[in-house]
Amino acid sequence: MPAAWLMSCRYESLVTLMSKRHIYLEDLPLDEARAKLQAALLAAGRLGPLPGETIALERALGRVTAGPVRARLSSPHYHCAAMDGYAVAAADTVDARETQALGLRLGREAHPVNTGDPLPDNTDAVIMIENVNQTDDGRLLIYAAVAPWQHVRLMGEDMVTTETVLQVNHQLRPVDLGALAGCGHATVVARRKPRAGVIPTGGELVQRDRRPERGQIIEYNSLILGGQIREAGGEATTSEIVDDTLDDLISALRAALDAAPDLLLVLSGSSAGSHDFTAGAISELGEVLVHGIAVRPGHPVIIGMIGKTPVIGVPGYPVSAALTGELLITPLIRAWLGLSREEPQMVEAVSTRKIVSPLGDDDFLRVALAEIDGNAQATPLQRGAGVITSLVQADGLAHIPRFHEGVDRGDVLRVSLYRSLSQIKSTIMVMGSHDPMLDLLATHLRLVSPARRMISVNVGSIGGLIALRRREAHLAGSHLFDPATATYNLPYLHKYLRDEPCQLVTFAHREQGLILPPGNPRGISEIADIRGLRYVNRQRGAGTRVLFDHLLDQHGISSDEITGYAREEYTHLGVAAAVSDGIGDCGMGLRSAAEAMGLAFIGMTWERYDLVIPRRTLETTGAQALLSVLRSAEFKRELGAQSGYRSDETGQIVQP
Amino acid sequence: MPAAWLMSCRYESLVTLMSKRHIYLEDLPLDEARAKLQAALLAAGRLGPLPGETIALERALGRVTAGPVRARLSSPHYHCAAMDGYAVAAADTVDARETQALGLRLGREAHPVNTGDPLPDNTDAVIMIENVNQTDDGRLLIYAAVAPWQHVRLMGEDMVTTETVLQVNHQLRPVDLGALAGCGHATVVARRKPRAGVIPTGGELVQRDRRPERGQIIEYNSLILGGQIREAGGEATTSEIVDDTLDDLISALRAALDAAPDLLLVLSGSSAGSHDFTAGAISELGEVLVHGIAVRPGHPVIIGMIGKTPVIGVPGYPVSAALTGELLITPLIRAWLGLSREEPQMVEAVSTRKIVSPLGDDDFLRVALAEIDGNAQATPLQRGAGVITSLVQADGLAHIPRFHEGVDRGDVLRVSLYRSLSQIKSTIMVMGSHDPMLDLLATHLRLVSPARRMISVNVGSIGGLIALRRREAHLAGSHLFDPATATYNLPYLHKYLRDEPCQLVTFAHREQGLILPPGNPRGISEIADIRGLRYVNRQRGAGTRVLFDHLLDQHGISSDEITGYAREEYTHLGVAAAVSDGIGDCGMGLRSAAEAMGLAFIGMTWERYDLVIPRRTLETTGAQALLSVLRSAEFKRELGAQSGYRSDETGQIVQP
Repeated sequence: MPAAWLMSCRYESLVTLMSKRHIYLEDLPLDEARAKLQAALLAAGRLGPLPGETIALERALGRVTAGPVRARLSSPHYHCAAMDGYAVAAADTVDARETQALGLRLGREAHPVNTGDPLPDNTDAVIMIENVNQTDDGRLLIYAAVAPWQHVRLMGEDMVTTETVLQVNHQLRPVDLGALAGCGHATVVARRKPRAGVIPTGGELVQRDRRPERGQIIEYNSLILGGQIREAGGEATTSEIVDDTLDDLISALRAALDAAPDLLLVLSGSSAGSHDFTAGAISELGEVLVHGIAVRPGHPVIIGMIGKTPVIGVPGYPVSAALTGELLITPLIRAWLGLSREEPQMVEAVSTRKIVSPLGDDDFLRVALAEIDGNAQATPLQRGAGVITSLVQADGLAHIPRFHEGVDRGDVLRVSLYRSLSQIKSTIMVMGSHDPMLDLLATHLRLVSPARRMISVNVGSIGGLIALRRREAHLAGSHLFDPATATYNLPYLHKYLRDEPCQLVTFAHREQGLILPPGNPRGISEIADIRGLRYVNRQRGAGTRVLFDHLLDQHGISSDEITGYAREEYTHLGVAAAVSDGIGDCGMGLRSAAEAMGLAFIGMTWERYDLVIPRRTLETTGAQALLSVLRSAEFKRELGAQSGYRSDETGQIVQP
Repeated sequence: MPAAWLMSCRYESLVTLMSKRHIYLEDLPLDEARAKLQAALLAAGRLGPLPGETIALERALGRVTAGPVRARLSSPHYHCAAMDGYAVAAADTVDARETQALGLRLGREAHPVNTGDPLPDNTDAVIMIENVNQTDDGRLLIYAAVAPWQHVRLMGEDMVTTETVLQVNHQLRPVDLGALAGCGHATVVARRKPRAGVIPTGGELVQRDRRPERGQIIEYNSLILGGQIREAGGEATTSEIVDDTLDDLISALRAALDAAPDLLLVLSGSSAGSHDFTAGAISELGEVLVHGIAVRPGHPVIIGMIGKTPVIGVPGYPVSAALTGELLITPLIRAWLGLSREEPQMVEAVSTRKIVSPLGDDDFLRVALAEIDGNAQATPLQRGAGVITSLVQADGLAHIPRFHEGVDRGDVLRVSLYRSLSQIKSTIMVMGSHDPMLDLLATHLRLVSPARRMISVNVGSIGGLIALRRREAHLAGSHLFDPATATYNLPYLHKYLRDEPCQLVTFAHREQGLILPPGNPRGISEIADIRGLRYVNRQRGAGTRVLFDHLLDQHGISSDEITGYAREEYTHLGVAAAVSDGIGDCGMGLRSAAEAMGLAFIGMTWERYDLVIPRRTLETTGAQALLSVLRSAEFKRELGAQSGYRSDETGQIVQP
């Protein structure tokens, strides 16, 4: 097995390196790590903003001035007419009266001018075209004397030569480009863009155009970090992927340094060992200043200097990598551009969950935000450093500082926003049971009203009802079967939402059944057949689990007889994935989930999935927009065309 | 005079066109104009978002998804180690106890794995490296049983194949690119960028690389509009400048239409006549829908359709042009991208001035904002449609709707922000006398602390003291000479700021004198010599005017003897510009202003210019930062090196 051999080889060199680890690994507080980097940059003469380069205005949008810019030309740079009309000498007009018109000779005492035209010699005022008449013999009749400089824009009225038009360290907007051109500049001296070299490392990484095998990971942190650098105003060049051996990394660092970057990033692989290779290579060529920062997620950050070039070792997990970019890298890019740290908009929001934070760390967690009954609510997203969906879904970043143990449910979190407040205010938050077609509804809503956004957080059907009671969601999705009444949802509303008047609106009928490996190798045909198989269960409170328990009951099977009953998945697709990958032999879920993963499916029942909409929500324009999309012919057609879905009652109100 | 002949030719054709004007000119309310454009786009099938095109992820930052994107690959796409350690089968570990180590054979029952490595076959858990020991004979000693899937990231834990990762109409951020790559995409289908053709018109316009002659204007509106379009996510191509004749414009429109743009902009010249050429050309090729919108500034906006292509005639004055871009053009670009209108952050701020608005117009005015004693204060900037400095200086845009006559001083304005609230909160607002070296101080402050900004509004020395009393500024600049005590500023503080304890800190000593045409052609040597000359005066309340009045007094000259005494300029450079351009024969001002414009100067006195700092301001970190810059050796050296300035007392506190 050559692969295993390689693996243990890597492992051996890792163990060798690890003996050095304790020299470096320190988990420095964030502020101290920043201070060390600053001090090293200062010593290297690299702390201040970068010098300027001359850029044509056409290409200068978003660039930053390297010095104050002064007007080369006054604006206007000559006295000019501020109106369409006739330029005259004010002194010639003193005898004009409303009752006694004064005639001025056209072309000699009065000259036609358009707005913006220079005043002809020996004139100092303009009479508006509306206030004159012309005679057949070429004279202009005026009916009032005019003051000098009437309707004239004087030279320099707006800007005078040598005046400061733009300050240093100013990021150029469209109007600034106009102002620069208007006062005689065709170019501007803008700070050079900071250049970063990005080196992805890790033998497990493959390029994006390849389909990864088992054990291989697509390299994408360079896209995240490169994008952050570009957004901050820098340039990023990504090298080929480097295997994590010390020699390869040293060669790659040397090659990257040849391009004289302002900053080098080494994107570590995901294993702890790979950080040691990074630290080893940096200390070979320069100095490691920081190895480990007390930040969660993101501990294994490395900061070093090779000569005068700072090198940052970025952790391999995407959430850690993105956070390292936000905390350490984009502030550096902005400082080199002469810009202050970007101050994100902050909001205070109530946490819908208890959050436990490690005492010694600055803890950063991504949250979904919604405004519910006028209160901002923050729901923490799944926390793993590898959960890239949390990066995509986050509306904001909550910071729980060092020496805090976390917050309780109901406590206020300060959240820096990733989306505008207006986007968050127009978000419809759905909690409850997971249905993949909620995404289809969100798509249709977004196509119809681009300002609205619907997000769904999966907490199971009962979880959704509890969230409504706690006013943490606008509406909930539920498919809870009540065996006693053989109805869906209504009995549960009475139980969980006694004090909250709600409307039930049908979302869809869905086919539930057993999800089985392709070809159904064991020939399962009914519930009783799953005895002895490894079952993949759903979490407590999930409607599908309620349904499964009911089916077990019907067939007189005890949950003790079901292997794996205690292991829980949180979505239909999760169950299907577990079956697909052989974690279990069967599970219960939607036909659509089974088919999406190419699995076998035995239908058991068609169930009703409803939206539970509190009356307080029903009156909002958001809910009205959502219901109108739900009831639209386009949506119902597309929903009904999905395998395992029926939309004939979609949008109907369920009568109690 | 061929130029005059040309001018009257243009004028004749203008008059011909003007006879048609009343057919079009309507001044439609903004909402109705937008509705007309929408209806025309709908009829042309051009209202919805643009279709998608396939883009490599590397180039997709900021682009907008044309459809929902689903995962192609689960993440992780195999079960993998969540820790560095050893992969084992949980079933093999049941007998391990803390008191009785269990030995597993390395390579058969226990396999070394790094974080992220796939689980070897027949293993389902990982034991952390910290919790084991290794024997010399190749066995791994473990001290506790492990549960299945311990320290394992399960396939699909983050994303499951077919799951929706990004919604439609989503603008791609760095993390989104990472997520797309992570779930198996190397490209994304993004909406095509809207393409705009921009046609600058006007015989008076010249390209930016040329020095304009009298009567010529540098073309720069294409930079403003092109920049706005690019910032909104579109592309803009600017044609050559077109002379404003009907035939030339029609040819230019035809040529621009050949490139099949989504939108055409005709940037009118500044005269009313040029709009008629635009309207004429559009109706020749298509239809004019709107000619004139009841918006200030910006009335002469034209909206038309040529075939299925919308054409917008943009007024020539830069403030009108920029506003047209904000109100009509960028919303269209965003709609084509499937994005909602950008919702700027809004603040409420107290107006420091009375504002008169035309009743029939939606009135938009640019304001400077500062937070003073915890209150947001809005100071309207100079209002002319040609005042491009107002575009650069504006912190926000206040909207006074139709049918409102304006606001009084002290009324609340709703302002949409052009700068972040944190930038505005860290702005130091200086009102009072104008000194060009305040810009130098602002530059030094900005270099030292990029987050701080100092802006100065020129209201004259006494105006500054009144602004402090009204709490409209953080500090004031003043150089008021009191003949009775032969001191500067202190007596005025007692008069104007009795209830506001202030500190006086010297900014500079400056040389004041007579500003004269180059070479001093009339041989002026003292104040008495200016009798009979046209004098350029400063505004009431300006320290320089106080000084001049004092000098007149000393020489027994009455202000009636001074021609032009009533005409006021607001800055030293304004006075110098007026002398330079022959509006007047002499004026009083700073040596630096005279030298900047290449004028002659007769020194009269060295005066002290102080910063007046209320105690409430003195305690703020902003004032402390400013004073520390003021007292820095670098600043004092650079200030003292300016002609007409002394900095030996700069930063010193003036003792009462």
